[in-house]
Amino acid sequence: MVAINCDMGESFSIYHCGDDEGLMPFVTVANVACGFHASDPRVMTRTVRLAKRHGVRVGAHPSLPDREGFGRREMKMDREELTAAVVYQIGALSGFLRAEGMELHHVKAHGSLYGMASRDEEVAAAIADAADVFGAPLMGLSGTVHEEVWGDRPAGFIAEYYADLDYRDDGSLIITREHHAFDPVTSAAGALRAVTEGTATSENGREIPVRADAVCVHSDTPNAVDLARAVHDILKPHLD
Amino acid sequence: MVAINCDMGESFSIYHCGDDEGLMPFVTVANVACGFHASDPRVMTRTVRLAKRHGVRVGAHPSLPDREGFGRREMKMDREELTAAVVYQIGALSGFLRAEGMELHHVKAHGSLYGMASRDEEVAAAIADAADVFGAPLMGLSGTVHEEVWGDRPAGFIAEYYADLDYRDDGSLIITREHHAFDPVTSAAGALRAVTEGTATSENGREIPVRADAVCVHSDTPNAVDLARAVHDILKPHLD
Amino acid sequence: MVAINCDMGESFSIYHCGDDEGLMPFVTVANVACGFHASDPRVMTRTVRLAKRHGVRVGAHPSLPDREGFGRREMKMDREELTAAVVYQIGALSGFLRAEGMELHHVKAHGSLYGMASRDEEVAAAIADAADVFGAPLMGLSGTVHEEVWGDRPAGFIAEYYADLDYRDDGSLIITREHHAFDPVTSAAGALRAVTEGTATSENGREIPVRADAVCVHSDTPNAVDLARAVHDILKPHLD
Amino acid sequence: MVAINCDMGESFSIYHCGDDEGLMPFVTVANVACGFHASDPRVMTRTVRLAKRHGVRVGAHPSLPDREGFGRREMKMDREELTAAVVYQIGALSGFLRAEGMELHHVKAHGSLYGMASRDEEVAAAIADAADVFGAPLMGLSGTVHEEVWGDRPAGFIAEYYADLDYRDDGSLIITREHHAFDPVTSAAGALRAVTEGTATSENGREIPVRADAVCVHSDTPNAVDLARAVHDILKPHLD
Repeated sequence: MVAINCDMGESFSIYHCGDDEGLMPFVTVANVACGFHASDPRVMTRTVRLAKRHGVRVGAHPSLPDREGFGRREMKMDREELTAAVVYQIGALSGFLRAEGMELHHVKAHGSLYGMASRDEEVAAAIADAADVFGAPLMGLSGTVHEEVWGDRPAGFIAEYYADLDYRDDGSLIITREHHAFDPVTSAAGALRAVTEGTATSENGREIPVRADAVCVHSDTPNAVDLARAVHDILKPHLD
Repeated sequence: MVAINCDMGESFSIYHCGDDEGLMPFVTVANVACGFHASDPRVMTRTVRLAKRHGVRVGAHPSLPDREGFGRREMKMDREELTAAVVYQIGALSGFLRAEGMELHHVKAHGSLYGMASRDEEVAAAIADAADVFGAPLMGLSGTVHEEVWGDRPAGFIAEYYADLDYRDDGSLIITREHHAFDPVTSAAGALRAVTEGTATSENGREIPVRADAVCVHSDTPNAVDLARAVHDILKPHLD
Repeated sequence: MVAINCDMGESFSIYHCGDDEGLMPFVTVANVACGFHASDPRVMTRTVRLAKRHGVRVGAHPSLPDREGFGRREMKMDREELTAAVVYQIGALSGFLRAEGMELHHVKAHGSLYGMASRDEEVAAAIADAADVFGAPLMGLSGTVHEEVWGDRPAGFIAEYYADLDYRDDGSLIITREHHAFDPVTSAAGALRAVTEGTATSENGREIPVRADAVCVHSDTPNAVDLARAVHDILKPHLD
Repeated sequence: MVAINCDMGESFSIYHCGDDEGLMPFVTVANVACGFHASDPRVMTRTVRLAKRHGVRVGAHPSLPDREGFGRREMKMDREELTAAVVYQIGALSGFLRAEGMELHHVKAHGSLYGMASRDEEVAAAIADAADVFGAPLMGLSGTVHEEVWGDRPAGFIAEYYADLDYRDDGSLIITREHHAFDPVTSAAGALRAVTEGTATSENGREIPVRADAVCVHSDTPNAVDLARAVHDILKPHLD
């Protein structure tokens, strides 16, 4: 069984970001921003309600405290304050879930926090300490510190495959800030292969092993909804 | 049975505010700042732990989103966004409580939000909608819109008497930004009388009715700890 | 001689707002956001450079400190702190102007600050005290406290006519949060009449006096660029 | 001729920090916080006025955008956005100086920004680009990237000696977050020797060369005022 996840609720103030309404039908879990890199309490209220209407489960998408940089600027925080920052965000989101009678599904770090946690054990452990408070599994990349640190945590680890990013020959992900359009048919076929066979094709055409408990689609690829629909359609028999 | 409450956890960044360590032994419930007018995730972590060590129960102390003004500048927010802002804050605090295995005790609005809610039904209702999500009683002033709106809420209303503020002849509270020192013996005697007889003496010497389910002491009166100790000592037989 | 002004530089972080590139050719002065309701230092850098490339002069567009509410939530600030907040913002913008060898053209308050200043002398005076530091004229509405307070200031008052809003019979402006599309031809004709004859037609068809030292167009009307182009074309002989 | 400098204006909201009133008589230039790590517009107004009353010249003390971490958490910002952030802060401070008829004296980076600029040419260059806009010299440490990058800038470089920190044998400074008390007599003698002879004694008792165009005293050493007074008294003949 596999999940399809997408970052959601990244609007803020008067600013819109991402076609949450268009994408919600094609995901099974939403990573919902918690106000540190994007979103605000009103947007969080609405995003959680939108997810509920679509039967989509909600995970927390905590970030470094950096709204101006959209959580994409690395910051050095010590372990205690990082755990506290993540508890704060997951707790805040949990309030909106409680208001809707929903349970927290998972925790997925955002932006630079995700990247730092894939390389730095202290950062990964700080996030895990926060997720453990809520008994929530962590979502991340297999073959990185994510899996090393989070794989042993009691609530479990959800390895995700990216349907709209390229992989290097060594299995690492090529994370880009601007996402180019991907052919939905090819991406969907790749996602199915990742899920059913555990393999992907690298940027150089090599076959590499991947682990896909969840498939991630981005909301800011140019044809995000088409791609999400294609991934959803092909994975339908495998969705939980 | 009566509670003694005090605003706590209002430090921020490198800045210290209030002698939380000194006061904690003399209160039974702490109103803990949630990051909108004061505090930050690290301070919240530490404040909740400090309360736990002293066996003090914790309430949320949400504010308007105004750190620069310490939540003391009135802001016009519509009901939906105000409820959302308060859910966010209570939720965030609840995360730290969960980390320590503690339960949320109550909600007490901070600063201008407290004042606005004492006069404006929409504001009071917005706060109550948030508290209801957590099943938490609201703490406020009897004889104001607090009691009108919050008195009917399922989780109940906790009326508080201020041991270190003066009352007008009409029973309304004289809220000052800078608190002058109060004589601990007189304040403590007043608190006992409020609790046991339901009366207080106004600034002009008139006897007025008050309701005191809880007695509030401030952390920023010049002799805050002495006053809190005196109030605590005299109310000891009545504390729950 | 008349100016055409428009709010510019209201993007923030990854969020885009308004077609500044499309509108810049059709305005003569830009009201540039200063980071309190919108914008950030990078956006300010780029907006000032964009204005320079188009030969557009730049005014400061200071706001209440309320990014989450886009400066549209009224806040009670005392006169000293309000002046300080506006000096801060004008000063910050002036740094970017200095980097480009440009001079500050005027000051126009944003959102709720603009509205509050049209009704409240203390607020209007607080803003004027800040503008006076920079010797900059204030832009606002004739027939309101803007004109009363700012009309006497040494740097002068620029009365603006709104090409894309309706007026009441009493000459007051109907300020809406969401702007509907206006017919460019009609709006442009109205702007020309305001400039050359000093009259406008109210929502009920009555002829009312208006003062138009500047004509304002919004960047968030659905057909903002078309409307700005039409206003610019018809006013070309009158532009300074 | 030498200057005595101290970080000032680091209060915020209701929070006090540093005895600016006590220290102002003993410094010749103040490094004034600009709102990113500390301070707010009201505090900036008051700090600039306090400096003016004491005949103290004012430099800008810009920081990374990190109020919660007091500018002490390293952040990765690209060169363009860092320059913009510093222009914003210097510009804002310049507004308050203009209000008092004062000129900007210098720019000194705060906290982690200061440390990063001492090691990273890109960071140092980004700050210098901002200072150049205002024609202001940069203050920093000789023997570091500060001197390499800032030494060539047209407005010049002010090398500072720290009277209340220890030096390593290699001449580098031991920067601590909490400052312990220093003996005023010893510190003052050290400052005089740094100014007149260009030498200091390292933590291990070795004589090392130092450059002291300015002597820095901190406001958060336990005996800050005594130390500043002693340094001021001994350097009086050398102050400009």
